[in-house]
Amino acid sequence: MNREQLVGLIKRKRSFLCVGLDSEAGKIPSHLKYFEDPVFEFNRQIIDATIDYAVAYKPNLAFYESRGPEGIKSLHRTMEYLSAFSDQVFTIADAKRGDIGNTSSQYATAFFDEQSSGYTFDSVTVAPYMGEDSVSPFLKFPGKWVILLALTSNKGAFDFQLIEDSSGTPLYARVLEVSKQWGTAENMMYVIGATRASMLAEVRSIVPDHFLLVPGVGAQGGSLKEVVHYGMNHDCGLLVNASRSIIFASTEDDFAVKAQREAMQMQSEMEFLLKEKGII
Amino acid sequence: MNREQLVGLIKRKRSFLCVGLDSEAGKIPSHLKYFEDPVFEFNRQIIDATIDYAVAYKPNLAFYESRGPEGIKSLHRTMEYLSAFSDQVFTIADAKRGDIGNTSSQYATAFFDEQSSGYTFDSVTVAPYMGEDSVSPFLKFPGKWVILLALTSNKGAFDFQLIEDSSGTPLYARVLEVSKQWGTAENMMYVIGATRASMLAEVRSIVPDHFLLVPGVGAQGGSLKEVVHYGMNHDCGLLVNASRSIIFASTEDDFAVKAQREAMQMQSEMEFLLKEKGII
Repeated sequence: MNREQLVGLIKRKRSFLCVGLDSEAGKIPSHLKYFEDPVFEFNRQIIDATIDYAVAYKPNLAFYESRGPEGIKSLHRTMEYLSAFSDQVFTIADAKRGDIGNTSSQYATAFFDEQSSGYTFDSVTVAPYMGEDSVSPFLKFPGKWVILLALTSNKGAFDFQLIEDSSGTPLYARVLEVSKQWGTAENMMYVIGATRASMLAEVRSIVPDHFLLVPGVGAQGGSLKEVVHYGMNHDCGLLVNASRSIIFASTEDDFAVKAQREAMQMQSEMEFLLKEKGII
Repeated sequence: MNREQLVGLIKRKRSFLCVGLDSEAGKIPSHLKYFEDPVFEFNRQIIDATIDYAVAYKPNLAFYESRGPEGIKSLHRTMEYLSAFSDQVFTIADAKRGDIGNTSSQYATAFFDEQSSGYTFDSVTVAPYMGEDSVSPFLKFPGKWVILLALTSNKGAFDFQLIEDSSGTPLYARVLEVSKQWGTAENMMYVIGATRASMLAEVRSIVPDHFLLVPGVGAQGGSLKEVVHYGMNHDCGLLVNASRSIIFASTEDDFAVKAQREAMQMQSEMEFLLKEKGII
């Protein structure tokens, strides 16, 4: 999915919500355990319940890999299911990969080349530590995106991402400055945690046009209004992710209904903010 | 495998060689293509040919994930095969993972909890960018190791790892200084590329006791002698990896014999250096 299509989707759905499919097997409602693949069934019902309100879905690979080959199967089924909605949703492999050039090429194949791996995502999250040759292989796939970690929403972000160099530039800002030359606003996005919303102003001064994937709204406590205030640009430029606050809004029989209500509430708030900013 | 056992293994085999199983399907000798699982058969023959000379095996996950579920199956079979040699080899999942705390726990489960994922490694490579809570979940598994990226062997290492902070400390050194407080020399190692061998002296001034996993000898051009000169400590403290230079020493019928010869040559050089340093 290219940028124009993504922006079109946001305007059509009046939403920039991304639903994180962090579908931890131990948290799946017990009545689903009689299905052949309870995690896939959970994802399928979550997708059905939220697809009118969400523009993107982001399975985090860890929650599937932890279950071995069975988990990978659940992920493949989920992606197969989502492929029927390929013009209605943007898909993100939240994998945080990154390795030397020839190895990153293999990861790019894993996430982007359906012929080889059996599934395809629109984008993949990548860690910046190993530099340009660890990122550029992902940029060689037309219509696909790299979402590079810049400023994450966790406590550990303070350990290295905020270290200032001799000119006073924090590492995350350096990552933005250097990496924006590797691709364009048409094939790169950045992860910027909502728990640091005020820093979004600084981020926007470096990458005014790029889309930002913003985790940390919801369970992690970030504010949507602040994110929009500091982070929204001329064509929205935001995907705001919520995972646990939606998919585990209830862990009972009514999980899909509760997930829908949660997604609908976020979409409604987003619609208001998109109107306020004159984007729709 | 704990540190004492690893050091014992190094002394017994007179080697600190790690063989990187970067088993790219497209490079597997064609006569193996008639096997049900050519990549596993390739790995099995490489392991049989090199196990007397290597103390560690390091499959890089990218080369398996790129083939989808089939690739994951090849990796599981390889790990099952290696499990029969669990007192003879140290295993490394070269996965370069790292995510927020609750998600890194899932990755730790994926690589360390056989009950859940169906396989287990002695160690996993982890990227430091997201800080302490992205690393510490891996340290909760007794007898397991984190191998944290510090200074990698690729060109992109220059982009961020060598940036100096206001006190003149480069990022990789800060990663070493900060992270060594998260674990101990009994459950953490560091990746330090051989292509920067002279920097090993600086590394050793910060982490004198930790094991270092050193890629970049062989196909990437690093020198074993220099690595030992700057990096070896009182009980060796080094695992030197070679991937392509061993496993693809030949891509013909004789690949196992050629791989063996290459591994034997490295082991023989390593034995000489271990003696010279008085470790054996």
